[in-house]
Parts: sequence; C-alpha cells; structure tokens
Amino acid sequence: MTYHLHYWPTIQGRGEFVRLALEEAGAAYVDVARGGKDEGGGERALMADIGDHDHPSFAPPYLVDGKLVIGQTANILLHLGARHGLAPKGEAGRLWVNQLQLTITDLVAEAHDVHHPVGMGLYYEDQKAEAARRAEEFRTQRMKKYLGWYETVLEKAQKGGWLTGADLTYADLSLFQVVEGLRYAFPHAMKRLEPKLKRVVAVRDAVAERPNIAAYLSSERRIPFSTEGIFRAYPELDPA
Amino acid sequence: MTYHLHYWPTIQGRGEFVRLALEEAGAAYVDVARGGKDEGGGERALMADIGDHDHPSFAPPYLVDGKLVIGQTANILLHLGARHGLAPKGEAGRLWVNQLQLTITDLVAEAHDVHHPVGMGLYYEDQKAEAARRAEEFRTQRMKKYLGWYETVLEKAQKGGWLTGADLTYADLSLFQVVEGLRYAFPHAMKRLEPKLKRVVAVRDAVAERPNIAAYLSSERRIPFSTEGIFRAYPELDPA
Repeated sequence: MTYHLHYWPTIQGRGEFVRLALEEAGAAYVDVARGGKDEGGGERALMADIGDHDHPSFAPPYLVDGKLVIGQTANILLHLGARHGLAPKGEAGRLWVNQLQLTITDLVAEAHDVHHPVGMGLYYEDQKAEAARRAEEFRTQRMKKYLGWYETVLEKAQKGGWLTGADLTYADLSLFQVVEGLRYAFPHAMKRLEPKLKRVVAVRDAVAERPNIAAYLSSERRIPFSTEGIFRAYPELDPA
Repeated sequence: MTYHLHYWPTIQGRGEFVRLALEEAGAAYVDVARGGKDEGGGERALMADIGDHDHPSFAPPYLVDGKLVIGQTANILLHLGARHGLAPKGEAGRLWVNQLQLTITDLVAEAHDVHHPVGMGLYYEDQKAEAARRAEEFRTQRMKKYLGWYETVLEKAQKGGWLTGADLTYADLSLFQVVEGLRYAFPHAMKRLEPKLKRVVAVRDAVAERPNIAAYLSSERRIPFSTEGIFRAYPELDPA
C-alpha cells in the first residue's frame, strides 16, 4: 500500500517529521502536493482536498493510508510508529514516545511563534519588533529548557543512546529535525547551548548516519530550510 | 486503583481537560497539588516531583496510574479514553478522537498566546500592546476557523450529536471546556460567533447535563475561571 502524504509542497514544515519517518521506514509514499497538477499537485489542490473527507483535517499535514485519513503530525507518527516498528509495542512505551513527540510539537509551535508572535496571517515584516522580544526569551530560556529536557531524558534512558534507550523511535527522528532546524534558525544560540547537549547532538548525528536518512538528506526529496518554513534564519533574531 | 493527577492547584488550565474525563468516568483520583502539604500538596511539591520519575514530564499536567507516569494532556486523555470507554475501540476511531483532541491542544495554545504573545515569563501587563494585536486576529479569524471546523465535523458525523456521532468521547468533554473558556474570555466575540455554531453549542449543553459533569461543575472541585489561567477575561481584548 502506498501512503499519500498531503502537505505544503515548498517547505519542510511540520510535514518533515512525517517524511523522516516514512523515509527511515523505507515506506512507499507519494508527496502529493509536490507532484504535477495532473496528479493533484500544488497548493490549490491541497486546499481543495483537505476538507473533502469524512475526517477532514484542520491543517496539513495529513496522511492517507487506504481508508484511513489521519491528521495532526503526532497522530500520524503514532500510526506510522506502530506500523513500521518505530515505537515500542507495549502501552507504556507507546505513550512515552507519544509524550516525547507532543513535547516536540510544543517546541515547534514556539519556534514558529518567534517570527509570528502577533499574527499568523501577517508577514514577519509586519511584526519585527514583537518578534525581537519573543526571540530573546526563546533563545535564552525556552530552547535551553526544551533541549535540556531531552538531554535529561537521554541521561535517564538505559544504554543505547536513543530517547527510549536501545531502539530508535520516531521521536529520535523528530529530535534530529529540531536540532537541524534550530541550528539553521539560531546558529549563535545553538553554538552556546550545544556544549551542554552532548546526548542530544549524538542523537542528531546517529540519525543523520542511518542509511535511509542519509540517502534522503542528499536527495532532491529533502527540501532546503528557508524563511518560508517554521524554522527561519533571520540574523536579527539571533545576535552573535 | 486511584489515579494521581499532578497539576497547578489554583487554575483550571490544561489540567481541566483531564479532570473532566476523570469526573465523567466516575474514576477515583487525587488532585495531588490541591491537597495539604503533608500529602504532597502545593506548587513547590509539584515542581519537586515532576522530574523525579524515569519518564519525567516537561510541564504539568501528568497522571500517575500505578507504574505509569503519563504527561501531555492529549496523551493522558488517549490513555483514559481507552480505559474508560471515552473513545472508540477501533484504530480508526481512536486516531480520529486523538486528532480532534490535538486540534483543541492547538486552539488552547493560541488562546494562551493571546495574553502572552512575546514572553511566557513576562506578565500580561508587560505585553499589553502586543496582546491587543494578537487578540484581534484570534477573535476575528482563529476562533471562527477552529470552532467552524468543529461545527463541520459535527455536521459530517452521523446522527447522535457528538463529534464522532453516537457516542460521547473525551473530545466532546474538551470541546465543552473550550466553549466555556472562550465564553469567559471573549464573551462579545462568542456572542457574534455562536449563531453559526449550533452543533458546537449543543455539544456544550449536552456535556453540561451529564450527571457526573453537572455534579462536578457545582462542586468545589471545579476551580473558577480567572485571569491566572489559560482563558483570561481582559475586557480590552474583547471589545463589544
């Protein structure tokens, strides 16, 4: 069965967490909106399709798996994790990985709000002063608190180096993506934080070396970071 | 088995979504931080306990269920829903209710950010100008988009009046809480929106009439809304 992923075609965004899981699993999938217009590609087709289901999604990404239409990034990963061995089989482990992922959801929302603190529908240029205020707290407190929490989780995990210990889960893939995004958007802040995040950085490195992930990252399927996505490099928000 | 809920003792906040599920289920639980200091009550004990687990939580609420320690509101509800018949048993239904809940998570985060657009660690009074900008978009666009989406979901659901059709789920309880919170924080905006939200309001009314919920709402266990919580009534953010 080929999955159909529906997400904005020109950014990594929240869809990237799903793409990484699909790539690691070696799953067959179509990134629908990135296809030609005759195959349902483009943003207009995405917006026409999203509501056209019994279970419509509030926003992309959503994944079509046969008759299932699943929205919300962490929910899609909950499903893929169970299908592809990217999460523990037991209830306790499954809930824990979901919790690790939902905390990444929170971090990602805050990373987005740095450049859109007062209006999602406004341009960054229309809220630069507010963004500068929000960025300062994000750089100096929130990034440290979130990443420090994952460092603590890794410290408490048993040997193996992954968030849950011995086995890679989709939360490790997502942690990789967060580190990459924050390095792109806040290189100076990350340079200051990383000496105290050795375990988090080790997860980032280990994910990058997974054969399927390495192949994906060097392919054209990996869209570059940009100032259209969630993690945005605005030098004024990350002073040296 | 008695559940132990750990959450800020003086606000409804995110913990309220968990309390509503526990109350509807008639489950035995201790709201730990609201207890006496000799029983682990108070915010200081909460902050001392939160990291003291193999699976620490990033923030309250978290629920202790025997050996399980579960954080993130939607994750706690995923667990309680399965245990207490507050979610469908099948995979498709379970994922759909999780998706409905995660979209409420997003709405709640935005409702919080209205009064804290540039600094979670700052007082509202230190970001009133930014809050006024953010509130305008929230009132005129975001509330409408979110609540309108739930109205559409209810319209697509089969007969029964609940979000999934025939049976109450924890997402219905959460939708009740969102309507109550928004009515408290944005009474004028809600008055304008509600005529187009008949199904959403009907869910709110039907939840309020559930015997266990009605008993809870009239008890001292229900903490009143206040300007310390997520939904805050600041008249300047909700002009007539």
